Amino acid sequence: MATKRFLNTRETLVTEALDGLVRLSGGRLARLDGYPHIKVVVRAQLDAAKVAIVSGGGSGHEPAHAGFVGEGMLSAAVCGEVFASPSVDAVLAAILAVTHEPGCLLIVKNYTGDRLNFGLAAERARALGKRVELVLVADDVALPDAARPRGVAGTLFVHKIAGYLAERGAALDEIAAAARAAASAIGSLGVSLEGCTIPGAPPTERLAADEGELGLGIHGEPGVEKIALQSVRSLVALMTTRLLAALPRERAHGRFALLVNDLGAVPPIEMSVIAHELLGSALAEHVDLVVGPAPLMTSLDMNGFSLSLLELDALRRAALLAPCGVAAWPGAHEPRALELRPLPSLAQDRRAPASADARREALLLALIDRAIAIAPELDALDARVGDGDTGSTLARGAQALRARLASLPFADAPALLRAIADVIGESMGGSSGVLLAIGCTACAVALTGGSNWATSLQAGADAMAGHGGAALGDRTLLDALVPALALACSGADWHAVARAARAGANATAGLPLARAGRSAYLRSDALLGTPDPGAVAIAALFEAAAAHLRNSSDG
Amino acid sequence: MATKRFLNTRETLVTEALDGLVRLSGGRLARLDGYPHIKVVVRAQLDAAKVAIVSGGGSGHEPAHAGFVGEGMLSAAVCGEVFASPSVDAVLAAILAVTHEPGCLLIVKNYTGDRLNFGLAAERARALGKRVELVLVADDVALPDAARPRGVAGTLFVHKIAGYLAERGAALDEIAAAARAAASAIGSLGVSLEGCTIPGAPPTERLAADEGELGLGIHGEPGVEKIALQSVRSLVALMTTRLLAALPRERAHGRFALLVNDLGAVPPIEMSVIAHELLGSALAEHVDLVVGPAPLMTSLDMNGFSLSLLELDALRRAALLAPCGVAAWPGAHEPRALELRPLPSLAQDRRAPASADARREALLLALIDRAIAIAPELDALDARVGDGDTGSTLARGAQALRARLASLPFADAPALLRAIADVIGESMGGSSGVLLAIGCTACAVALTGGSNWATSLQAGADAMAGHGGAALGDRTLLDALVPALALACSGADWHAVARAARAGANATAGLPLARAGRSAYLRSDALLGTPDPGAVAIAALFEAAAAHLRNSSDG
Repeated sequence: MATKRFLNTRETLVTEALDGLVRLSGGRLARLDGYPHIKVVVRAQLDAAKVAIVSGGGSGHEPAHAGFVGEGMLSAAVCGEVFASPSVDAVLAAILAVTHEPGCLLIVKNYTGDRLNFGLAAERARALGKRVELVLVADDVALPDAARPRGVAGTLFVHKIAGYLAERGAALDEIAAAARAAASAIGSLGVSLEGCTIPGAPPTERLAADEGELGLGIHGEPGVEKIALQSVRSLVALMTTRLLAALPRERAHGRFALLVNDLGAVPPIEMSVIAHELLGSALAEHVDLVVGPAPLMTSLDMNGFSLSLLELDALRRAALLAPCGVAAWPGAHEPRALELRPLPSLAQDRRAPASADARREALLLALIDRAIAIAPELDALDARVGDGDTGSTLARGAQALRARLASLPFADAPALLRAIADVIGESMGGSSGVLLAIGCTACAVALTGGSNWATSLQAGADAMAGHGGAALGDRTLLDALVPALALACSGADWHAVARAARAGANATAGLPLARAGRSAYLRSDALLGTPDPGAVAIAALFEAAAAHLRNSSDG
Repeated sequence: MATKRFLNTRETLVTEALDGLVRLSGGRLARLDGYPHIKVVVRAQLDAAKVAIVSGGGSGHEPAHAGFVGEGMLSAAVCGEVFASPSVDAVLAAILAVTHEPGCLLIVKNYTGDRLNFGLAAERARALGKRVELVLVADDVALPDAARPRGVAGTLFVHKIAGYLAERGAALDEIAAAARAAASAIGSLGVSLEGCTIPGAPPTERLAADEGELGLGIHGEPGVEKIALQSVRSLVALMTTRLLAALPRERAHGRFALLVNDLGAVPPIEMSVIAHELLGSALAEHVDLVVGPAPLMTSLDMNGFSLSLLELDALRRAALLAPCGVAAWPGAHEPRALELRPLPSLAQDRRAPASADARREALLLALIDRAIAIAPELDALDARVGDGDTGSTLARGAQALRARLASLPFADAPALLRAIADVIGESMGGSSGVLLAIGCTACAVALTGGSNWATSLQAGADAMAGHGGAALGDRTLLDALVPALALACSGADWHAVARAARAGANATAGLPLARAGRSAYLRSDALLGTPDPGAVAIAALFEAAAAHLRNSSDG
């Protein structure tokens, strides 16, 4: 039960949230100067030639209702305290603030407090000469025989349709009729795994660890039914069945819009899974448009979601698809078949056929032999400063290379390096294999670009440093590699290069702190006196190469 | 700890979520046909003349990264399993799928797995002749001395800036330079009250009920510091101090964009409170633009948020303000001073001055006397079917009217009814006061419109029925009122009308089921034999009126 919340005080929760919203609306929103009693958010720019659309109710349902004030949706939102209807005066203030000659439509969720307070405000506004109509939304189908179904997230459909018509300059009677017709064509059902945390109230504990509840409202009241914790697939199947069963028979062949509403604390990845299951459910064949998934009509931090169906006609379809100036409205989209793109061929850089080059093959074999031979020594060093597997990891790569010798393109140096990168990347595993593959691949690119071996090897070392995030002095193989290749690039012979590598490796024993690589998380004094095993491996391989090159040029 | 989640299986979580996203993108997105190993979402329409922008990493951060694929942001997102880097092959597939002649920029968060896998993929793509640049984002300031700060939500700034430049046709080098410069000008800090639930892993329990943690990453790892549970105001002050302290001194006078990121399960109302506190914090004077609050880079269901600061220059400002075709990007807004609108005068309908009309005053007094006299009888009836206060509530309204008699505008009938509505609405309290006020107000509107008393009273009854949601036969005062007023409208005298009211009231005793009003929640058989107290009150008042009118016409 998530009871730790981000609040200042219960008393200031709503006013602070509204002010945050208004101040970050980019000038789109204003509010009436009536705090704390009258909490009304209005459009900053109102068109006196258009019908005003006003909604509201208790707070705790954000972005409803203030988040839906804007071009093409609401003209004003009247906000009560958390889960409490706003006062008659607050509703009347909202009506008077935004209503001009064309009149005003109030959109009210069917809860007694809202009905009465919005109702009296409507009558008072009429007594003041304002043209006011009121539409009630009672979309909850949780209790099929309820005399007064609750108004829940399906209310958003009515906001959008009324807002669309008002923006187009329709008359009040037309808008009210369309809104009432739409309200009568909506069914909604919610589910939750955990109740919401009402500030100042004790946490609700009515659900066991393996329970959820179905058919709940948006004020923390219990659902009509406890259900077992289950997969989203089976949950969606259950809800789909209930929603379809609640449709009047004459609607069974209609086309629908489906609104998928996060009740407050379901993270986006799970809402997408829910959407995915809906698209594969029995509901999908009835659905032409989907709104969301998104938080639209929340219930504080409730870990749940709701589904709302609206039967479509041409007007409702156009209204839902119309763009509007409200960031919280996620748009309506036609569900599509999955757009698949063919996978690019990843093998195109491995395709070089096997080819022969005896000198290169012999050099590679010499390096393989040395890598395998020094594995125990490297593991022993690594046991002092890391997890003791530097040698065996390197040997695994070497053995894999030996097993694949016959397939390697020795005659094509860049292709050979890319092939080696693939083999060691796959066989060594972990970050060291990827790092060596990076080095080999970058070296191949440089060779292809016309660089000589020394410069190309240095390009490989640079890539390893860049992608690995280590620098000289960080107790990594770079401490052997970098000085050796600097010498190689200046034209030194391979023996001098190997000596530089060894000197660099030895010097790591005196480096105090590992800032990168395997020893980064050890205390500095545990390292002193032990050279870095990666640097030692590099030194050994340069020595093997130098010895082999001397022998083969001797021979 | 919220451990009940909406999932099917851990193994299919990411692929299902991505398919849900792609299918509801309105044709904007596609994905590579490489499931389950290669999970890459791409723009359905790509412009081969523009640089491709590719990002990605482990999943569980939605809407990052697939949710940011679209015009003006990413060309492709490479998605790993939850909190696990995607493979080299997956990254390479993404690069190859979207990269044309102008090249590709990889935007990588600084985690070892991502660095290496994106790095090797970049090298392999280069080996295939692709122009590829890579920018690392390492924006976390939780550990000021960290050699390798983590990449967190500030990455979104880099996505937007690079996407903006690419959309405008900038060259790869220019985009990479701008992205790197931006990445080096970002600082981010996160806070959480509860850790996230990693599917298949045991819940983390490291925080006590009065603890939060500061300086956390986005993979469920512990924060650098436990902190006391505290108000948003003090939390924001703490984070603001840390963020400002982490700025290099030369940036202390810069202008900044602030990104406010929901880490997964903070409901919108609390994110707005957080935004409100930020606008009143020491940070505010440094901030020109705010992105969010919104879920941008989440950490599954983490109950926390993060703040990211980006130092602005002209390019970054333009890039953040530019519209883009990505629904999950909330836009950047200049924080504004609160736009306040004056409260409309609500007293304008109460302003009628006191005036005299002896007949009306005498009638009202007769009704007041009767209401007070029958209070005990009504309470007794109500005790059987409701909460036992019908009579005393009505008497409270009557007494308030008697106390205000001298101020009432008796000479102006509609004004008188509005004034009565105000007095009983305020004094009676609860739904019955509001309902009677609705009736009086609607009656006043009808009188103003020229209707006679009977028709006007019927308009009042209609309004009470409409706003109260009850119909004839629902065991409410309408069961007395409706037949009485039907008779009145047909021209019957007030005695006949009163008899009809009484007959209607008596008949409620035989009605089985209350569908609305105070008895709606009782068992039907508990009601039989007891008339509805509201209907009895109406009958008594009509009788009092009839008697008074006879007496006064006699006199």
